[in-house]
Amino acid sequence: MSKQILVLPGDGIGPEIMAEAVKVLQLANDKFQLDFELSYDELGGAAVDKYGVPLADETLARARAADAILLGAVGGPKWDTIDPAIRPERGLLKIRSQLGLFGNLRPALLYPQLADASSLKPEIVAGLDILIVRELTGGIYFGKPRESKVLENGERMAYDTLPYSESEIRRIAKVGFDMAMVRNKKLCSVDKANVLASSQLWRAVVEEVAKDYPEIELSHMYVDNAAMQLVRAPKQFDVIVTDNMFGDILSDEASMLTGSIGMLPSASLDAGNKGMYEPCHGSAPDIAGQGIANPLATILSVSMMLRYSFNQVAAADAIEQAVSDVLDQGLRTGDIWSEGCTKVGTQAMGDAVVAAL
Amino acid sequence: MSKQILVLPGDGIGPEIMAEAVKVLQLANDKFQLDFELSYDELGGAAVDKYGVPLADETLARARAADAILLGAVGGPKWDTIDPAIRPERGLLKIRSQLGLFGNLRPALLYPQLADASSLKPEIVAGLDILIVRELTGGIYFGKPRESKVLENGERMAYDTLPYSESEIRRIAKVGFDMAMVRNKKLCSVDKANVLASSQLWRAVVEEVAKDYPEIELSHMYVDNAAMQLVRAPKQFDVIVTDNMFGDILSDEASMLTGSIGMLPSASLDAGNKGMYEPCHGSAPDIAGQGIANPLATILSVSMMLRYSFNQVAAADAIEQAVSDVLDQGLRTGDIWSEGCTKVGTQAMGDAVVAAL
Ligand SMILES: CC(C)[C@H](C(=O)O)[C@@H](O)C(=O)O
Ligand SMILES: CC(C)[C@H](C(=O)O)[C@@H](O)C(=O)O
Repeated sequence: MSKQILVLPGDGIGPEIMAEAVKVLQLANDKFQLDFELSYDELGGAAVDKYGVPLADETLARARAADAILLGAVGGPKWDTIDPAIRPERGLLKIRSQLGLFGNLRPALLYPQLADASSLKPEIVAGLDILIVRELTGGIYFGKPRESKVLENGERMAYDTLPYSESEIRRIAKVGFDMAMVRNKKLCSVDKANVLASSQLWRAVVEEVAKDYPEIELSHMYVDNAAMQLVRAPKQFDVIVTDNMFGDILSDEASMLTGSIGMLPSASLDAGNKGMYEPCHGSAPDIAGQGIANPLATILSVSMMLRYSFNQVAAADAIEQAVSDVLDQGLRTGDIWSEGCTKVGTQAMGDAVVAAL
Repeated sequence: MSKQILVLPGDGIGPEIMAEAVKVLQLANDKFQLDFELSYDELGGAAVDKYGVPLADETLARARAADAILLGAVGGPKWDTIDPAIRPERGLLKIRSQLGLFGNLRPALLYPQLADASSLKPEIVAGLDILIVRELTGGIYFGKPRESKVLENGERMAYDTLPYSESEIRRIAKVGFDMAMVRNKKLCSVDKANVLASSQLWRAVVEEVAKDYPEIELSHMYVDNAAMQLVRAPKQFDVIVTDNMFGDILSDEASMLTGSIGMLPSASLDAGNKGMYEPCHGSAPDIAGQGIANPLATILSVSMMLRYSFNQVAAADAIEQAVSDVLDQGLRTGDIWSEGCTKVGTQAMGDAVVAAL
């Protein structure tokens, strides 16, 4: 039976970069006889425009039925002033939560061809290859109660709740350890256990899970120190596992160390093989519609999808190799361009990957 | 009437670096006729050893009575395994909270003499001079309820609460705007308003306060983006104002951009002129007692104290100039040493600043 892929191009540069990623996926589909069937829908601002909400029930049903989801990016100034309850991000948070996509994998990988793009000194980042495993469906993002109210003295106040249960921590810790097993067997768990009750439980449960992984060298680091160490000596890390909020912050910091966030894909996985795949970068409304956005992070998200949801290692490797080949050819979109390289647009970049594949 | 300074050397390298800072303070006292009187007490692990708690009531009373407090650093492996309720950090959090030291100023300044120490490319950080204004007595650090419990199904769970009231946000926003007024008139408020209720109130109140500061160019940034932008182009920032948790993370990240956290002082201010002054770095237990720690951040904390709590601008300037002079002389402790400079210990560095002053 053919596999169902739901494609959600989203907002801003989303549709442009997705068009290129789909070309690459279609070619891989033929070449490796993957038997994929694609269908399309909207998420984020585009869904607000079409359905009145950032994630329509019918879209969610389609996402549930699909074997994997490819997402472009969501959000843009057009929807900045609408009712917060239906802002584009709400659709993203809802699909993550409703599909139980708790395991967010965010690699920060420095492509040797793009070593100069980093704002860090070459010796600090050369060969950088970190994987951040972020808990994606719990913590302060979804904690209840959360409220905004007026106190008796007339003052406004608002609060959020940061909850974690043992089982939520255990399952994301396992993802961290499993990833470390197939990489360099080093896992760093990041928390703020010197201040937060939730972090104390986090640390205790990670220690318990560690017993099942005697081969893994486990360390713990406070989030403030982790934010420093990523700048000071990022190569000390292999896999980092952390909660939703800290993972949001640290994964963005880590991705920027590479200087080429336009190259970084991500995966959000449920307890089975199902996953949503998307570039790490945002919807970049400032350059949307100009045909200059970098489609490579989305193309590499296709490769991640083949690897994690469908175990199609050969096809995944081939796409990564094709991306590396176009970089070797000196082709660059504006965001990663440097002196001596050939500047190309979104479509030309997609075509080059297709040709290399 | 003479001014009372309470000195809390703390743990690890605390006593060593404080000894040098006190030498500098005593000299400034004489030279500028400051009429300061110093007294000493313990905080953190040293207080646990002496009083059984990380902040004794009598110490807190002394701190309340003092006009300013100089702190070394707290914490160390010796107290890592004691009852979490009396860990060294608890003393630090308690003194901040009890004295109402809500306004935490953390400069990230790159000394031209130490430009090489940064892990970032020189052109990215040359001339870097950011001030992070962190809310220090509210938010998730102190929010109630916080609890660790066992659910009916036998599973453990724990949670923290992140509350902010209008008045808490307003007073720290004012500090941010006031600092921006005497600097480059640019303030960036960092939150996570696309996810958190507390951040939505934060942003709304900052906007209200902005009306009183028409000269200030205010921007808002999500915390994940701020963590990226600090790496990508830190010089885009002048003053950053943010909440307790985000400020903890971003100020450490920002200080590491300079590559010389051993140089960075900080101030924690209440609603009046009272403040606690301490280096940004920690207690560095690994090098404690060896006489090699860098005392300059603590010496510069003295200068911050003179400036913010006592308005002794000439004395503050003189100390900063003396520090700059010893750097010009090529003197360096191990943490900031580079080829061609003279490596000195803690005491020799303190003596050199005294001589320069
Ligand atoms: C858009 C936003 C809600 C989202 C998040 O905070 O998770 C984004 O920053 C991300 O990291 O995917
Ligand atoms: C020691 C710890 C509780 C403290 C904090 O998180 O505030 C420290 O990291 C700091 O930034 O002063």
